[in-house]
Formats: sequence, structure tokens, C-alpha cells
Amino acid sequence: MSEAVPPPPPGLAPTRDVTVTRIGAGGVTRTRDVAAAEEPLDVRLHGRSFAVIMRTPGEDRALAAGFLLSERIIRSAADLGAVEHCRHPDESRAHHVVDVFLVGGAAARVPAMLEQRRQVVANSSCGICGRATIDELASDIEPLAIDRTMTVDVIRALPGRLRARQTMFEETGGLHGAALFDPDGVLVGSAEDVGRHNAVDKVIGSRLLEHAHGSPPAIASALMVSGRVSFEIVQKAWLGGIEVVAAISAPTSLAIELAEAAGITLLGFVRESSLNIYTHTARIAGV
Amino acid sequence: MSEAVPPPPPGLAPTRDVTVTRIGAGGVTRTRDVAAAEEPLDVRLHGRSFAVIMRTPGEDRALAAGFLLSERIIRSAADLGAVEHCRHPDESRAHHVVDVFLVGGAAARVPAMLEQRRQVVANSSCGICGRATIDELASDIEPLAIDRTMTVDVIRALPGRLRARQTMFEETGGLHGAALFDPDGVLVGSAEDVGRHNAVDKVIGSRLLEHAHGSPPAIASALMVSGRVSFEIVQKAWLGGIEVVAAISAPTSLAIELAEAAGITLLGFVRESSLNIYTHTARIAGV
Repeated sequence: MSEAVPPPPPGLAPTRDVTVTRIGAGGVTRTRDVAAAEEPLDVRLHGRSFAVIMRTPGEDRALAAGFLLSERIIRSAADLGAVEHCRHPDESRAHHVVDVFLVGGAAARVPAMLEQRRQVVANSSCGICGRATIDELASDIEPLAIDRTMTVDVIRALPGRLRARQTMFEETGGLHGAALFDPDGVLVGSAEDVGRHNAVDKVIGSRLLEHAHGSPPAIASALMVSGRVSFEIVQKAWLGGIEVVAAISAPTSLAIELAEAAGITLLGFVRESSLNIYTHTARIAGV
Repeated sequence: MSEAVPPPPPGLAPTRDVTVTRIGAGGVTRTRDVAAAEEPLDVRLHGRSFAVIMRTPGEDRALAAGFLLSERIIRSAADLGAVEHCRHPDESRAHHVVDVFLVGGAAARVPAMLEQRRQVVANSSCGICGRATIDELASDIEPLAIDRTMTVDVIRALPGRLRARQTMFEETGGLHGAALFDPDGVLVGSAEDVGRHNAVDKVIGSRLLEHAHGSPPAIASALMVSGRVSFEIVQKAWLGGIEVVAAISAPTSLAIELAEAAGITLLGFVRESSLNIYTHTARIAGV
């Protein structure tokens, strides 16, 4: 597909270079790695914000068109007029904004559809970006203090302990798992769900329920997830006061940036034999 | 965690038994398998629908509490009053409804929060379930006709062809892939994204854009995705007119039910040596 805009600046590439503290057979090394980029895309209908989608930059116009089909705003290509990156000269985030104009009956329905979404989409009149999203959260929530550490040996053991709780995954191959651990690696809760975010909401929510019933729950220092770590997973951990987020797989660029701002220690590709530390290594003893 | 409601009926178990046509080294067999259950949960705030979440049944109260923390409706366990499955005698779907009541300042904010969401949540006054969701779609969209077939040999080759296009995954380990193929297995488009749904929206949306520019795109018969298949992925395929959905990993129970209603052939655990057919085997030649 051809994009009718100039090549994006480096910050909009689909991947980002990141610095990683790697713990492996050869000891502790500081190295460069590549993370999948994650940035909000503002999809505008007839000039007004309709939806904000966290996405990897690239094929943004196609994403906007496909999203509008999935949301049943359009029924076919015939409903699409123009689908273009924002060209407003005052729009500094133009590459994170796609303007869509519909035609015919679909166009006539746009005002009603925008009215329905009125309050859902955050104010994005001056464009949005990952940095602004993080700043907005940081203005409202305190970064987590670094006053406890975990050892590398404790962390190495977490994937096995999560896997032992993924009984439905064993049976179906189709579920995400999440588990909470105390600073010594003792499991304090786990959940499975077809939705990655649901598994995290369940395991954090179960602690809220325990607390609501009067008995203060055990300290949960670390969240281990079976898959990848996106912005939203780190946000959930921050809101839940979880200091360490560990994943079997990779974090996105924005997950790393948010973890940095949140005071969260973010770990990826966690194995028995090796792991990557992306942020706040001070919380890992002996590194 | 204890749930203060009677044990759920069999239909609300976290897994479902499904019948599968398995193609492997031993030829074609008809066998039983287990799929992760996926059903909508209606989260109600002070008796009114606030959000509908596709989830695996189980720990529903914890999911509701964690979701409200993530959405920043509550700030801590102190904001939670009651969190219970619906007990209304006329509510036949009570196990798919969690009623939440907040206390203090959070309770005072509920009317305004519900007003904001007013139009977002579909009418769910008589409860919701996966079956109702499918019926609503089926009342509006025609099932896809079975007038073309694909061969098993073509399907076996799709995972390798998708993988060859996942250049960013190779680099980052953190991206989902989706690709479209014509009935002969020729690739007609591919996309990568941190979001599984985004990758599908991008690859279907790119075809809408081609069409909007006047040149009718090639026939896309099959969608191959790198991960699991949820309800929403099948819905996107249906709206995009894609007849075959194939996945490296497992489908959910509701994805299978929707594919059945949509006339979509759903394939899971697709490998060089074996694959599962969940629905509409008639579209696979020679089975």
C-alpha cells in the first residue's frame, strides 16, 4: 500500500531501540535490543475524534478502514470517501491521526455516531501520543517507591509457578494466564482467561475483593503474565500497586516507557536460564 | 475466592467440549476436543449496564472489580460496596451479570459515569449471552456461501507463508501477524501489530482502501492469524467476507459458534503435519 504522506520521522518507526540489562549464562550484560513500537492512533470521522487505538505505527490508513468495518460504521469500501493522515499545519502529531470522510448514507449517519461516542474518547484536540498518555497518568498517580527487592533466583522460578496454575491452558491451548507473587516468590493468586487483560483484571480484582471483606491481603510484589506486555498491562499493574511486571514474552515500547514513569521494574523473556530487565534494575537484588 | 452463588450450570463452565475433524498423519478423524469458553459478562453499576466484557466464565466478581480499577472508576477496595452475581428472579442470565454497588464519593459519581457510557453499551436489559450476540449479527449479515473449496495441501502451507511475512516479529518477538490468501494459497496481503485485532483490521482494511481506489482487489478466501481465535476475530472475518479463518493456536468456544452461524470454515492448530477443522468442513476439498 502507498501512504500519501512523507516518510514518518524516526519516532514513528514500527520498532524502537531499547537498552536492556540481560541476565544470562554469561552473567549480567548491558545491551541494545529492539521492541515493537506501540503508540495511540486517533481515528477521526469528519474531523472529530471517533476512537483512539493503541497500535504499532504503519498501515494506519488500513487500520482505520478495517476498524470502521469491524465497528460496523461502514459496510463496504463504497462508504469510504477520503482516508488520510491529518494534514492540518498546526497538528504536530499528524502521523498519529487519520482523518476519515464517508460518503452517501454512511456520511449522513456520522453526526449521530459521533454524538454516541461523545464522552468516550478523551480530549485529543491537540493530538495524542504515548508520552501525553503517560504524562496524564503520572499527573494523577504516584510512582511506586523502590523499597523492596526481589532476587534473580526468585524471578527465574516464576514462569514455572505460573505454568503450574494454567490448568485450563493445558487442556485447551487457548487461555492467557496471570499470577501474583509476594517478594519471596510465593504465589498469592492466579487467573486464566481468553482475554489477556481479563486475566490481569481477575487476579488484581480478587485482591480488591479480599480487601473489601476486611482481611488485608498478602503483599503482592510481582505480576507474571504468560504472553506479551502492552501499555495497558503495565497501567493495570500501576493502578494495582504491583512493583514488578514479568513476562514470558516481549514488552512493547510504550510498556517500557510507562514502567519507567511508574517506578515499575519490567522484565521480559523470563526463563530459568535468562531474563531481560528493561526498567528500574535497583529493585532486583545483586544486579 | 468464594462465589456467593450456587455452582453454575454446565454451560457456564470455563471450558467446552467441541467436536473436531482432525487431519493428521493417521488421516482424517472425527474426535472430541476441549475449547476455552468465551461468553459476554455484563458489569452493572448500581443496577445499570456499564460494560460488556468478553471473558472466560469464572472469577467474574474479581474481573468486575479489577476492570473497574483499570477503568479508574474505583481507586481502591474502599470504594467497593457489594460485588455480586445478579440475583433478580427474572434474570435468566444471572451468571453472566455482576452487579456492583460503590460507596462514598465513588457512589456519588456513578450517575455521571453511567450517563457518559449511555450509548456505548448495547441494550442488555434482559441479559446477554453469546447466543444472543450471534443471533443479533446473524439477523443483519448473510452467512457466507460455500461455493469455493481449498485443499488441505494449500492450508498446510499457510503458516509458513505468514511467518515469512512476520519480519518485525522476528526482530522483536512482540507482534501479532495476520495474512490474507486467495483460494490457491497465494498471499494477497499481510500486517503486523502489537494488537491481535489491529493486525486483522489492517489486513482487511488495506483491501477496502484498494477497492476504494477503483481497482477491485484479488479474491481473499482465507485469513491466517499467528495466535488464537476469539469471537471478535471471526466477526471481523465475517464482516470482511473472508470464508476461511485459520490459526496457529486454539479457537474459543464462541469463535466456533460464530463461525458455524457465519458459514465460515474455522481451522485451528494449523501445522505442516496436522490441523483441526471446527466448522464447515465442506469448504475443504477431499475431507
